[in-house]
Amino acid sequence: METLSTAKSHGGVQGVYRHLSEATKTQMTFAVFVPPQAERGPVPVLWYLSGLTCTHANVMEKGEYRAAAAEHGVMIVCPDTSPRGPDVPDEPDNWQFGCGAGFYVDATQEPYAANYQMATYVRDELPALVAKNFRADMSRQSIFGHSMGGHGALTLALKNPGRFKSCSAFAPIVQPSTAGWSKPAFEKYLGPDEATWRAYDATSLIADGARFPEFLVDQGSADPFLTTGLRPGLLEEACKAAGIPLTLTLREGYDHSYFFISSYMAEHVAWHAARLRA
Amino acid sequence: METLSTAKSHGGVQGVYRHLSEATKTQMTFAVFVPPQAERGPVPVLWYLSGLTCTHANVMEKGEYRAAAAEHGVMIVCPDTSPRGPDVPDEPDNWQFGCGAGFYVDATQEPYAANYQMATYVRDELPALVAKNFRADMSRQSIFGHSMGGHGALTLALKNPGRFKSCSAFAPIVQPSTAGWSKPAFEKYLGPDEATWRAYDATSLIADGARFPEFLVDQGSADPFLTTGLRPGLLEEACKAAGIPLTLTLREGYDHSYFFISSYMAEHVAWHAARLRA
Repeated sequence: METLSTAKSHGGVQGVYRHLSEATKTQMTFAVFVPPQAERGPVPVLWYLSGLTCTHANVMEKGEYRAAAAEHGVMIVCPDTSPRGPDVPDEPDNWQFGCGAGFYVDATQEPYAANYQMATYVRDELPALVAKNFRADMSRQSIFGHSMGGHGALTLALKNPGRFKSCSAFAPIVQPSTAGWSKPAFEKYLGPDEATWRAYDATSLIADGARFPEFLVDQGSADPFLTTGLRPGLLEEACKAAGIPLTLTLREGYDHSYFFISSYMAEHVAWHAARLRA
Repeated sequence: METLSTAKSHGGVQGVYRHLSEATKTQMTFAVFVPPQAERGPVPVLWYLSGLTCTHANVMEKGEYRAAAAEHGVMIVCPDTSPRGPDVPDEPDNWQFGCGAGFYVDATQEPYAANYQMATYVRDELPALVAKNFRADMSRQSIFGHSMGGHGALTLALKNPGRFKSCSAFAPIVQPSTAGWSKPAFEKYLGPDEATWRAYDATSLIADGARFPEFLVDQGSADPFLTTGLRPGLLEEACKAAGIPLTLTLREGYDHSYFFISSYMAEHVAWHAARLRA
């Protein structure tokens, strides 16, 4: 693992790191904020998964998570959203597929399967690297994310309920298998058999029996993707049918941007911290 | 004035605006955060001046000022750091001069004098525009900034002590007339007569009799420009000689980046808010 940069911030250290990933066969960059409490011992880990077009850097720069993370003593890890590089198959003019749009799946279709193994990367490889290189208490992990990353957080939590103490999302894609901006990507990564898509769709996972203790979701009412790509009501229905407590709040006037995410970041970090301490 | 974008954030509105400036003869872009308290009446105005290479956008994205501004009911206005455009004389390969490096002076030398009138722009033209278009209480204004913008804030405050209730800075250039990264710019904007530079140099202004009630300055100890371009000790000496109270804190381990600025942003906004309310 190579350190690309570190800077003291809010009493802790915001770093950016790179490593050669076995899962994606590419160099992967990620950001870690280590709170000041890590000087005294291992701290819990909160994973943040980003949305379409983002790298590790967007939320690191615009997410405003460090004040709350330092207050609550939580490490925040922000992976990239896909493999990248000249040898990685991509559609450069398509922001909803390829680089910046890994959708946190393990691709099974050529030519994507060789690199687009983001489910394995985020679930297994990066946690092992973090456990080895940072003062992380891996027995206390939680996860959240935005949009495509909200989808990633919800599905990872549903498939690994023992692993995560809590899961929340900002404006998540709750049913990517039927949304216009994700369905073509699922088809290219996973093939035409839609039954294989269910493992990467929060509402399908719940319908198929996956459970998680509770979810916290914030959604802006002025989000231009609200009724097309996001549709939080579908998660509400799925959780209601399954008896999963969901705190879904429509935030009046907020859009899909980091100006929205940062407005509720401190609340989400505090919410996770309470569950990580429990 | 044209609205380029608005987004709800932290209960208020973060907007970006553009107008044709009389002072610079160019389109100028600036950012304004209007806190939720403005719905009930005019709110005080806190000016933030940015550093070398920045536009209005850097601190808007990375400065983490909105939570504190919304808490304290303060409007925050972030101007650009220079005129820009194809007709503006520039040295594109020089980050310490020209576009992104206006140094908040009114240039007297050709070919810069026609556009580089940032002192007039920030002191007169933009405040008039803000007063006309926003619910701003112009009887309550304060100012702060970073690096070159810290220089801008200190010099504007010293030259207009009745206008500003308070002034603070992150890692300011306190003596630009003798620092390596600013002296060449001063010569090109203002000419070889160094006597004319004193009006844009905080330590010279103080030596020449300018006064301000007090200053708050935070400076990172790991700032790579600490002992060359910044030299806060020179401000300390000048303030001591003039009897100006200065709260200068060296922040252990912090660098020159927005990771530093954002760490102390909430403290500075709260400090200004207390003085704006007084």
